[in-house]
Amino acid sequence: MSGKAERTKELILDRVYPLFSKRGFKQVTMKDVCEVTGLSRGGLYSHFAGTGELFEALLGKITEKDAMDFHGEISKGLSATEILEGALRLMEDEMEHPEDSLSIAMYEYAEVTGSDVMEHFNRIWEEKWTALIRYGIERGEFSNVNVREVVNVILFSYQGIRMWSRIIRMEPETIQSVTGHIRNLLIRKDL
Amino acid sequence: MSGKAERTKELILDRVYPLFSKRGFKQVTMKDVCEVTGLSRGGLYSHFAGTGELFEALLGKITEKDAMDFHGEISKGLSATEILEGALRLMEDEMEHPEDSLSIAMYEYAEVTGSDVMEHFNRIWEEKWTALIRYGIERGEFSNVNVREVVNVILFSYQGIRMWSRIIRMEPETIQSVTGHIRNLLIRKDL
Repeated sequence: MSGKAERTKELILDRVYPLFSKRGFKQVTMKDVCEVTGLSRGGLYSHFAGTGELFEALLGKITEKDAMDFHGEISKGLSATEILEGALRLMEDEMEHPEDSLSIAMYEYAEVTGSDVMEHFNRIWEEKWTALIRYGIERGEFSNVNVREVVNVILFSYQGIRMWSRIIRMEPETIQSVTGHIRNLLIRKDL
Repeated sequence: MSGKAERTKELILDRVYPLFSKRGFKQVTMKDVCEVTGLSRGGLYSHFAGTGELFEALLGKITEKDAMDFHGEISKGLSATEILEGALRLMEDEMEHPEDSLSIAMYEYAEVTGSDVMEHFNRIWEEKWTALIRYGIERGEFSNVNVREVVNVILFSYQGIRMWSRIIRMEPETIQSVTGHIRNLLIRKDL
């Protein structure tokens, strides 16, 4: 793909994110996307065949974002603690912004399309966290936890907060108590 | 209220539960409720002024259900471990039934009405769990954990699973790894 087409796609994804987070998946039309991007119908369709393709591209972008590239950071030899702290900071930042949560859009998308796509993305997150925790244990930085258990607690407490921050006012202390829990579970205190 | 009126209300709440869990809050009308209960419009309105009142009564019923009456169980002097095991079994059972999840209905209700009602119910759950954990620590059955942290992890990992079980297929092992985590956090192993 040419650089220009790539940049247009990025621009579309940036502009469409707030639409999906605000309205969910079902209430967003290609016409809405034209409006927020200023693209013509033909221009938009040359990049994305529909809102489903757009939403999956957006999820792909979020999943691959540099700030949570555990595999890349591991291969650079960064310390597991450093990688974890960066991830927790980013998660706190995300959890403090309920207006950016895609929970409802993901729910609606799974409802419309079946669950395979969302299972795919969930598996990527499971693998990322599993790799980081194993790496930390191997390096002697993390406690010898039950990896699967801790990965599930991380993923679902995060998702629970993201969803519920749209239902109730979420205090920063609530968010920090959950990231603090993850930190305490993993980082060895006996070093 | 007379016994008969009370029984009719109970029947309405039982019949309306699957409507809210399946469709969310916004897609349920008083006409739908008449259909599933067999009540006339007048009959239904003599019990509930609208779907909002109905939904709040349903949340009240769930929150007060006997099976999670920690305060009552504590005052009977049951062991904290016994109370916890009962609660975890019930949570596992609920998490294994995504079709019964009211996550989306709660989200939509908060969106329509503002968050006060949902905050009220969230606070009740926070208080219940806080009381149980403090009781277990006092009795020397539970580890001396950070109570607030553990309460948040319990509530939000549970909510995350309930929500995500509507998005992806949730394996029983995933659910059990989270309840196992709660059990391991709380129950002292040195006894």
